[in-house]
Amino acid sequence: MRVVRACVCGSDLHPYHRMPASPTGNTMGHEFIGVVEEVGRDVATLKRGGFVIAPFAWSDGTCDFCREGLQTSCRHGGFWNAPGVGGGQAEAVRVPLADGTLVAVPVGEDSIQLPSLLTLSDVLGTGYHAARMAGVNERTTVTVIGDGAVGLMAVLSAKRLGAQRIILMGRHTDRTDLGLEFGATDIVSERGEEGITKVRELTGGDGTHAVLEAVGHMPAYEQAVGIVRPGGVISRVGVPQYEEAPIGFGSLFGANITLTGGPAPVRAYINELLPDILDGRIEPGKVFDRTVSLDETPDGYRAMDDRTALKVLVRP
Amino acid sequence: MRVVRACVCGSDLHPYHRMPASPTGNTMGHEFIGVVEEVGRDVATLKRGGFVIAPFAWSDGTCDFCREGLQTSCRHGGFWNAPGVGGGQAEAVRVPLADGTLVAVPVGEDSIQLPSLLTLSDVLGTGYHAARMAGVNERTTVTVIGDGAVGLMAVLSAKRLGAQRIILMGRHTDRTDLGLEFGATDIVSERGEEGITKVRELTGGDGTHAVLEAVGHMPAYEQAVGIVRPGGVISRVGVPQYEEAPIGFGSLFGANITLTGGPAPVRAYINELLPDILDGRIEPGKVFDRTVSLDETPDGYRAMDDRTALKVLVRP
Repeated sequence: MRVVRACVCGSDLHPYHRMPASPTGNTMGHEFIGVVEEVGRDVATLKRGGFVIAPFAWSDGTCDFCREGLQTSCRHGGFWNAPGVGGGQAEAVRVPLADGTLVAVPVGEDSIQLPSLLTLSDVLGTGYHAARMAGVNERTTVTVIGDGAVGLMAVLSAKRLGAQRIILMGRHTDRTDLGLEFGATDIVSERGEEGITKVRELTGGDGTHAVLEAVGHMPAYEQAVGIVRPGGVISRVGVPQYEEAPIGFGSLFGANITLTGGPAPVRAYINELLPDILDGRIEPGKVFDRTVSLDETPDGYRAMDDRTALKVLVRP
Repeated sequence: MRVVRACVCGSDLHPYHRMPASPTGNTMGHEFIGVVEEVGRDVATLKRGGFVIAPFAWSDGTCDFCREGLQTSCRHGGFWNAPGVGGGQAEAVRVPLADGTLVAVPVGEDSIQLPSLLTLSDVLGTGYHAARMAGVNERTTVTVIGDGAVGLMAVLSAKRLGAQRIILMGRHTDRTDLGLEFGATDIVSERGEEGITKVRELTGGDGTHAVLEAVGHMPAYEQAVGIVRPGGVISRVGVPQYEEAPIGFGSLFGANITLTGGPAPVRAYINELLPDILDGRIEPGKVFDRTVSLDETPDGYRAMDDRTALKVLVRP
């Protein structure tokens, strides 16, 4: 698959900080869309020249987990940049289990919708997973913790699922402005205890039914516990940077709080969300605020790490 | 309300061990059924002489939480043995918010169904809450951790909700035998890693969709994490005797595990479960294996603490 557009994920910043230098280098990136250049002999449904979206995990599409919509637990699947499998920040990628993994889209590689289609690789599906797992509907009040790209997609997803009240917690005005455009009704820029107090004030003291946690650090989890309504749901899609956390009587149990979420099976959501993009009902591609060439990708990482860019698009 | 039958709860054993001696004494117990002896002037729906069931929490029945079926978070409710409110292991109890709290039942105080009706106060509704919050249905495989009265009620509840495969983890043959009678299909007497391995063997390596945790100690939680299937649910009704526990990538997040449960709003389930008891479709009262008089209640605590009794009925 020839990569037409790729991008940098907030989660790419973890190896950017921590991965040891390697003499041979490592492939990077797991969000990409492009054109099928060649197909293996076992591929049945994809054709050379077709435009396709690659989800951030590959999967067979036939096992019980895939049929249940949990492609991230596919019995034969895996993740890009695993040994022997390339990554999306590249000219081209060999795609295992292509029939199960890729989704064909009737657009050309000059489509102005490419940025929005690219969000189906990860960030839109991940925000949507948070909202779906939290059971968001028109009667649900929602708080989204984090104004990064996933948080903003969680706002858009909660809005799409009918939520009337969506509180976005974030401190970067340019990002929270986009959040308002995507459907947030309130912005809370305070964090920690102050942020909790503010959300409780906005909700008659109760907190919100759903809290979509799109950060992954412990203070975000503590904030979620502080603002969820009794009987409500904390739905995490920020990859937890902690293992132990409070879940006892005083945090989750006493008020019947449900904790859910995980790596989003974005493959399960592409068919559902694609028409909204093609018909122009949502424009998630607005999260991209910088474009770099493949050679400039390190600048893209730097910009996201400095918070001078929200999400960087890579154009090979 | 004159108490006709009460009982001792596994959770009563915590204060039995820990509560400091008091010169005036404390009331105890939160599971009781009996007869209305007198009504306050604000009581509209209950009549003197009527037989009623008291859930383990009192609630107004009118606030938003009550209407949502989360009576344990009622805005004006509370729990027995709170200051100024009595407990169920007594001759009589003053019931606050009686219209919202009590459920009238068309039986006499000589009914042979009293033991089963008494389980609606707590233990049956608590087991049922575990199964309901886990979303158990006919396609769900279930493991129940704990062969105490709540665990056995969780088995009965999973069966009632249609589960075809119910693995009960417990070591006391007399209890697991009752579990088989209530609908368990497999018994696993091993604990810890051995128990996890055994359940995985029984489920093709995957674990079960739902794990109903009816113990509350950390080893039971760790066992639950070890045997839940990817995308599955751990539903806790054993009151956690810990605050911090693993919930990061390696325990819950990576496999999209949902953690749910809490104090059961048993009031919400009485109307649903009552007909099953009155019509004889279920006989949860079988969990009582000893009866004591009010004066003998300390012997009842001792017997449950020694594990020589499964659940003790108190007959004032």
